[in-house]
Amino acid sequence: MEISSTQTHLLINTGMSFIGFLCLLNIIPKLKDMFVAANLSGIDMSKPGRAKIPEAQGVVCGAVFLIIMFLFIPFPFYKHLAVNHSTKFPHNEYIEYIAALLSICCMIFLGFADDVLNLKWRHKIWLPTMASLPLLMVYFVNFDSTIIIVPLPLRQFLGHDIDLGVLYYVYMGMLAVFCTNAINILAGINGLECGQAVIIALSVLLYNFIEMSGIYHQAHVFSAYFIIPFLAVSLALLYYNWYPSQVFVGDTFCYFSGMTFAVVAILGHFSKTMLLFFIPQVINFLYSAPQIFKLVPCPRHRLPSYDPKTDKLKMSMTVFKTSSLNPIGRIIVKLMRSLGILYVEETDETFSCNNMTLINFILKFMGPLHERSLCVILLFIQVLCSCVAFFIRYQLAKVFYGD
Amino acid sequence: MEISSTQTHLLINTGMSFIGFLCLLNIIPKLKDMFVAANLSGIDMSKPGRAKIPEAQGVVCGAVFLIIMFLFIPFPFYKHLAVNHSTKFPHNEYIEYIAALLSICCMIFLGFADDVLNLKWRHKIWLPTMASLPLLMVYFVNFDSTIIIVPLPLRQFLGHDIDLGVLYYVYMGMLAVFCTNAINILAGINGLECGQAVIIALSVLLYNFIEMSGIYHQAHVFSAYFIIPFLAVSLALLYYNWYPSQVFVGDTFCYFSGMTFAVVAILGHFSKTMLLFFIPQVINFLYSAPQIFKLVPCPRHRLPSYDPKTDKLKMSMTVFKTSSLNPIGRIIVKLMRSLGILYVEETDETFSCNNMTLINFILKFMGPLHERSLCVILLFIQVLCSCVAFFIRYQLAKVFYGD
Repeated sequence: MEISSTQTHLLINTGMSFIGFLCLLNIIPKLKDMFVAANLSGIDMSKPGRAKIPEAQGVVCGAVFLIIMFLFIPFPFYKHLAVNHSTKFPHNEYIEYIAALLSICCMIFLGFADDVLNLKWRHKIWLPTMASLPLLMVYFVNFDSTIIIVPLPLRQFLGHDIDLGVLYYVYMGMLAVFCTNAINILAGINGLECGQAVIIALSVLLYNFIEMSGIYHQAHVFSAYFIIPFLAVSLALLYYNWYPSQVFVGDTFCYFSGMTFAVVAILGHFSKTMLLFFIPQVINFLYSAPQIFKLVPCPRHRLPSYDPKTDKLKMSMTVFKTSSLNPIGRIIVKLMRSLGILYVEETDETFSCNNMTLINFILKFMGPLHERSLCVILLFIQVLCSCVAFFIRYQLAKVFYGD
Repeated sequence: MEISSTQTHLLINTGMSFIGFLCLLNIIPKLKDMFVAANLSGIDMSKPGRAKIPEAQGVVCGAVFLIIMFLFIPFPFYKHLAVNHSTKFPHNEYIEYIAALLSICCMIFLGFADDVLNLKWRHKIWLPTMASLPLLMVYFVNFDSTIIIVPLPLRQFLGHDIDLGVLYYVYMGMLAVFCTNAINILAGINGLECGQAVIIALSVLLYNFIEMSGIYHQAHVFSAYFIIPFLAVSLALLYYNWYPSQVFVGDTFCYFSGMTFAVVAILGHFSKTMLLFFIPQVINFLYSAPQIFKLVPCPRHRLPSYDPKTDKLKMSMTVFKTSSLNPIGRIIVKLMRSLGILYVEETDETFSCNNMTLINFILKFMGPLHERSLCVILLFIQVLCSCVAFFIRYQLAKVFYGD
C-alpha cells in the first residue's frame, strides 16, 4: 500500500515535471527579448559573430521548478489532509520539504542577484552558508545523526564510529558552499553547465531508485521528488543552451543546481555518495586551486581561446613576469610541470602556463577541439566518473566498510 | 516563566534587528555604484537635476531581513533543542516560521525579478498566489479554522457563525495579492512607500503588544518576531529614501513588505485587523479602480507633475478624446465629478480629468505642494487611519460582535 501510493506520487511528480518541461520549451524563447532589454545578455566569445545572447536563464528554470514543487507538495500529504484531522499530520516530513525549498529559493535569488549585480567573492562564500541554516536546523531536529562509521583499516586506531558533533554541521554547511561553486567553476562552453547538472541528476535519480527498496526508502523518495522536476527544467534549458547556444544559463543556474544537490544529499543522508558524483568537479577544483587561491596569477577569464580560422578552441594561457611568482607558486608550477599536467613556456623574463581548469587540461592533451566536441568529451568524462562512483559505492565500500 | 522567556527572545530579536539596521545604514551607500552599473537606476522625475538614483534597494533590505530571521530562528526553539531529544520538538510552530520565510523569500525574488525584467501584469497577479501556497497549506494543517463569526445585526439571517470552507483560503490567497500590490500603487513620491510600510508595521506591532497578554499570545509573539526586523530594515531604507531620495525602493520593497504583512496576518489570525491598517491603500485602490480596470484611459505614469519654477508638485491629468470614453466610464466620471472627488476639464473634442490616485486627490484639494509636505500629509493620513483602525477594532467591534 505504502509502495503503491509512492509510485502514484512519483508518477504525478513526473507528469507535472513533464508539463513544466513543455512550458519551459515554450517560454524561454519568448522571454529572450525581456532579458536582453534588461541588459542581461552576453557575447559568446567562442563564436565568429558577436550576437547578444540572453543571460541568466537559470532564473526562469528556477521559477518553474518552484512552481512545480509548490503545486506538487500537497499530493504526498493528501491522505493525511483528506481524512479526519485527529490522525497525526507528519509535520517533521512536511518541514523537510519547506526548508529544502526555502534553501533552494534563497539560492536562486542569490544567483540571480549575482548575475544582475556581479556580487563580490566574499558574498558568494558566506551567503550560501546562511541559506543552508534553516535546512541544518531541520536536520538537527529531525535526525541529529552526526556519527560516521570508520572504514575498516582505520578502526584499530579510531574505533567503530566517531561522533563528529558540530563538525558534521560544518561539513554539511561546506557541502552547500562546495556544490554551489563547483558547477560554477567548471563552466564556460556551450552546454557544459546544464549538461553536467543533467548527468549528475540522472546519476542521483538512478541511485535513488536503487535505494528506494532499502531501509532508507523515505529519504530516497524525498530526493526523487526534487530531482525529477530539476531534471525536467534542466533538460529544457539544455535544449536551448546546447551548441550553438541560444541562451546562457548564468550563475543562477549553477547556484540553483548546486543547492538542489546539496539539499537532497543532506536530507537524504547520502552526502558521501553525492560527492562521488562530483568527481570531475572535485578534480577541476583541485587543479584550479593554485589559481583560485592566487598562488599563480589568475586572469579575469580562463575560458579556452577561440580560433576563428579553424572554428576550434585551444587552451588559454596566463602570462606573467617570472619574478612576480611567489615561492609556493613556483614549487607548485614545477611540480605540476614534472607530473606532465601543466603546459609551461618560459623565456628569460616572462613565464606562461595554461590556465588551470579541466577544460584547458583536456585541450592540452587532445589539442584544439571544436566547442561541441569538447563539451561532449567533458560530459563523457562526467558519465565515466558516475560509473566509477557507482563502483566505489557498491563494490569498494564493501572492502572498506564490510557488508 | 513562559512570558519571561518570550521577553528574552523579543529582546534578542530587537537587538539583532538593531544590528541589521546599523549594517544597512552602512552598506546601502556602498552598494549604490553596483546598482547603477547594473542599470538598476532611475531618474527622479520630481527634481530639477536629472541624476541617476539607484533603484530596487528593497532587495538589500530583504536580504538583510532574511539573514536576521535565519540567525534568530534557533532562539525561540533553543529550550527544545538544548535538552534531551525525547521532549517533543514543536514542529508545527517551527514550520510556520519556515513557510512564512519561504513565502517572503519568493516574494523578494519575484519583486527583484520585476525590477530587473519588468514583468507583465498577468505574472504579477498569479505569482504571489503561488508564493502563498505553502503558507496556506501550513494554515490548513495547523489550524484549518475557516469559521467566521457573524456580526450581531446579521445573526438573525445567517446564524452565529458561518463556515466559509475553501472560500476562506481563496480570501487568504487574495489577501496576499492585495497586500503586495496595494503598497505598490500608493507610491511614486520620495519616502512614501517606506513611510507607509513603517507606519503599518508600527501599528501592527502596537496591536501585537496589546494582544500578547490575551489568549492568542503565541500568534502575536510570532507576528512581532517578524515585524520588528521588518521595521528595522524599513527604517534604514527610509533614511535614504526620504526627501531628497538618495535611493529608490523598487517593486522589490513593495512586494517584500506586502507579503510580510500578509504572512503575519494569516498565521497570526488577524487578517481583518490587518486590512483596517490598510485603509488608505484600500481607498487608493477603490479611487484608482476606474483607471486600473481601463474604464477610464490610464497613462503609463500617474505621478503628480513637477513644476521646476515653484519646486512644487501639482496633480497630473489624463487627456483623451471624449468619444473614446466608453459608457460605463462616462457614468463613473460623471458620478465622481458630481461627488466633487474628480477634477474635470471638458472641451468640445477632448476631455481631461486628474489621474485617479490618492496622491492626486490630495493635490486637487490642497493645491500644489512641495514633495516633502505632500509625503508628510499622506503619512499623517496613514497615522490617522491607524487610529481609526484601533477605534474600530476595540470600540466599534463591541457593537457588532458584543463583548
